[in-house]
Amino acid sequence: MEYKKVTPGISEELRKIFGDRNVLTEVEKMEPYASDEAGKQYAHMPDVVVKAENEEQIARLMELANREHIPVTPRGAGSGLAGAAVPLYGGIVLSVEKMNRILEIDEDNMVAVCEPGVVTNDLCKAVADKGLFYAGYPMSVEESYIGSNVATNAGGAKVIKYGSTRSHVLGLGCISPTGEKLVLGGKRRKETSGYSLLQLMIGSEGTLGIITNVIVNLIPPSNKTVDLLVPFANFDDAAKASSSIIRTTKVYPVTMEFMDIFSVRATTEYLNLPPLPAQDKAEAYLLFTLEGVDQDELDELAEKAGTACLEMGALDVFVASTRTESEKVWNIRISMPTALLEKWPHVLTGDVVVPRSETAEFMARTREIIKKYAKVQLEFHGHIGDGNIHSSLIDTGNRTDKEWIEFAEEAYGELCLLGSQLGGTVSGEHGIGLEKKSVLRQSLGEYPISLMRGIKKVFDPNDILNPGKIFDLK
Amino acid sequence: MEYKKVTPGISEELRKIFGDRNVLTEVEKMEPYASDEAGKQYAHMPDVVVKAENEEQIARLMELANREHIPVTPRGAGSGLAGAAVPLYGGIVLSVEKMNRILEIDEDNMVAVCEPGVVTNDLCKAVADKGLFYAGYPMSVEESYIGSNVATNAGGAKVIKYGSTRSHVLGLGCISPTGEKLVLGGKRRKETSGYSLLQLMIGSEGTLGIITNVIVNLIPPSNKTVDLLVPFANFDDAAKASSSIIRTTKVYPVTMEFMDIFSVRATTEYLNLPPLPAQDKAEAYLLFTLEGVDQDELDELAEKAGTACLEMGALDVFVASTRTESEKVWNIRISMPTALLEKWPHVLTGDVVVPRSETAEFMARTREIIKKYAKVQLEFHGHIGDGNIHSSLIDTGNRTDKEWIEFAEEAYGELCLLGSQLGGTVSGEHGIGLEKKSVLRQSLGEYPISLMRGIKKVFDPNDILNPGKIFDLK
Repeated sequence: MEYKKVTPGISEELRKIFGDRNVLTEVEKMEPYASDEAGKQYAHMPDVVVKAENEEQIARLMELANREHIPVTPRGAGSGLAGAAVPLYGGIVLSVEKMNRILEIDEDNMVAVCEPGVVTNDLCKAVADKGLFYAGYPMSVEESYIGSNVATNAGGAKVIKYGSTRSHVLGLGCISPTGEKLVLGGKRRKETSGYSLLQLMIGSEGTLGIITNVIVNLIPPSNKTVDLLVPFANFDDAAKASSSIIRTTKVYPVTMEFMDIFSVRATTEYLNLPPLPAQDKAEAYLLFTLEGVDQDELDELAEKAGTACLEMGALDVFVASTRTESEKVWNIRISMPTALLEKWPHVLTGDVVVPRSETAEFMARTREIIKKYAKVQLEFHGHIGDGNIHSSLIDTGNRTDKEWIEFAEEAYGELCLLGSQLGGTVSGEHGIGLEKKSVLRQSLGEYPISLMRGIKKVFDPNDILNPGKIFDLK
Repeated sequence: MEYKKVTPGISEELRKIFGDRNVLTEVEKMEPYASDEAGKQYAHMPDVVVKAENEEQIARLMELANREHIPVTPRGAGSGLAGAAVPLYGGIVLSVEKMNRILEIDEDNMVAVCEPGVVTNDLCKAVADKGLFYAGYPMSVEESYIGSNVATNAGGAKVIKYGSTRSHVLGLGCISPTGEKLVLGGKRRKETSGYSLLQLMIGSEGTLGIITNVIVNLIPPSNKTVDLLVPFANFDDAAKASSSIIRTTKVYPVTMEFMDIFSVRATTEYLNLPPLPAQDKAEAYLLFTLEGVDQDELDELAEKAGTACLEMGALDVFVASTRTESEKVWNIRISMPTALLEKWPHVLTGDVVVPRSETAEFMARTREIIKKYAKVQLEFHGHIGDGNIHSSLIDTGNRTDKEWIEFAEEAYGELCLLGSQLGGTVSGEHGIGLEKKSVLRQSLGEYPISLMRGIKKVFDPNDILNPGKIFDLK
């Protein structure tokens, strides 16, 4: 891919558009913008970092970038796990960190309108103050931005009941790769007005447009919730229980998480917490949240689900009866990725998704596949209720960055193809970025990728916006 | 648009693919396939009608059609209201009426797999027998096909709580316009694996692919429902009450319908039913359904919502306490389009959607706009809870088909643009078809249409599949 570099003249133009304070060119200031949580081994330095304060600046940037043939990589909080925010060909990183205002909470239409850089949890709290509920809940909720949640169609723990970010987005404002303004959807709740460019934009990882505002759906909050922590002596029993519990009880949980004993131990140690109940006897835990209108309904649901767990081999069922207890156990679940990354230099946390009924099979066959590799630890945690288990590969062999990337691509590629064979796909919520391009092509085959390439060319004829992500343009 | 005609030789090839019994060439047999419920004034005769029994036949058809440059128009039940199933350039109509099997109800994954020609209500009943619930509910539920619901992203009365058809579709099997097999999504509940071709296909009105199977999400059924019928002496009070009730009570109904007195009178007369309660005093009704886990919750919700209605000017609140009572009043609501179409030769039922807060304004300004036209009756009914009011224009002047089409395009165009100005769009659930191409372009502007055209060319380089729908390809 041949792009031009940012010259001093272009930097000057950028300063005119964004103001001196919003243009970074010093290496040490740009360094944090060179990678995301996929890891430093994927880092590439940009020529310049700009911070947008409004949509108009972004439109002018894209006009300039097209004219000068310089790539632009949009960036949110940098909490992505697939390298989508890495400026693979240098050029300009566009940060939306300063576009962080909640523009409106419209109670009549039960929607919120946000700039893209609003931290998702800030949105959740602001709408809760109005007695409303935003149902998106990626595990990075306290860190990631709403615009980036849209760009990756972020998932998380509540997808089983509420759906991925896609389910909550009613409208988007965008700047196209060629600098045109696009208004997609709106405060309306129905739409069949031509091809859904709104839906196409969601999950396109910043390759089809730059999101400048987001309109999300809000709902009334459920009245009450209860969390159940359920240790199983046997790994497979825990794995198989997930779809059985839902099938037999028809209790539909808001969340249903899986945690293997390795991840629980690593995380309680990292957080300096005492062991979880039954931590000496359990091979895995289920953690799930039930929602009900009142305590009677909650008790009934917890009784049904708890009994089903015990019938399927659970050691015990612990009901978190206070908010503090719930927060404690969820803190362990949420801290798992950080605990792993702090302890080991190379961790690849996959997000293959399979039909819920296939999760036990997926984990068992994954263990078989990984057995043939030396010096790698396998770990499982994640959203078993929606079939989205995170299998982490952990380097216990002190590989170099290059060795690790090669190893991880090969081994993770096998897991992705296994997931595809079981009726799943290579990414449930993290996206493809630059890390999974090769496995996406292998899993989908050439025709769907050729359609995606064609669509990219329609939006971005010069391949200026976030090039080299999802697929290679050839 | 220059296409080739179906020659006797090509008919012979079609007979080899589909079998003699599935190829119609006699005019009287083809006539029902020349139009849909947009009306006979949009009819075009095809050269031939074929009935597919499996996906392989459809793939072979598309190869042949591309080779011979003959247009193919896919068709479901013909209940569409925008002319999307009309073979505008003749050629081949492909009916999926024989692909009507429910292939699987998978209780572990809580999904159903259907062929495209399954009547939606048949699916609803089959899953209900397993204690599960399909939440799609277009008003044509007893007639339209699930595949066509997907192709138009059908809406209906339950969108306010459950979303449009898009919200219920997890996977599709399709044949592309060039005859390639596409497997989009699956039984999985999360996906961020490149551009969502699944979402792009949904609502594309049979222009990007032919749907050969549909995987829908199922949920556990709610325990109980109650319907409230609420007459208002004043039209505007009823219109304004919709968003106020939801805002002030935080009661989130499953449905919230609006019916003006004209539509109620026309329909009770057509069905030979006694008047609705307060039919002599009311200018409009709200009809809404509440869902709860038990009778206590239902009573509480009905009390809250009913009190709010009375405070906003309702004459009374009638609670349908039996299933028979509910069915009686819903039968009136569902029969409205038929009642109008049976009585008047020309009816255009629009489906402009606006933010819920703007419905009263939309109806008031629509009445102003239509005042300037002679010999036209205006009628309103529809899904006020999600901002999707059906405004019907009824010809009371015995216009010719041509005069009516010209009039309706002009007048409806004004309503569409009004809807757009109020933050809405030209079609909430019926689609664009051939009827609303011009207003879609006016409402969206040139750039989004140019993106849609580009996408169409990527999928269908020869413009073979359902040409002339949504936009003109230039």
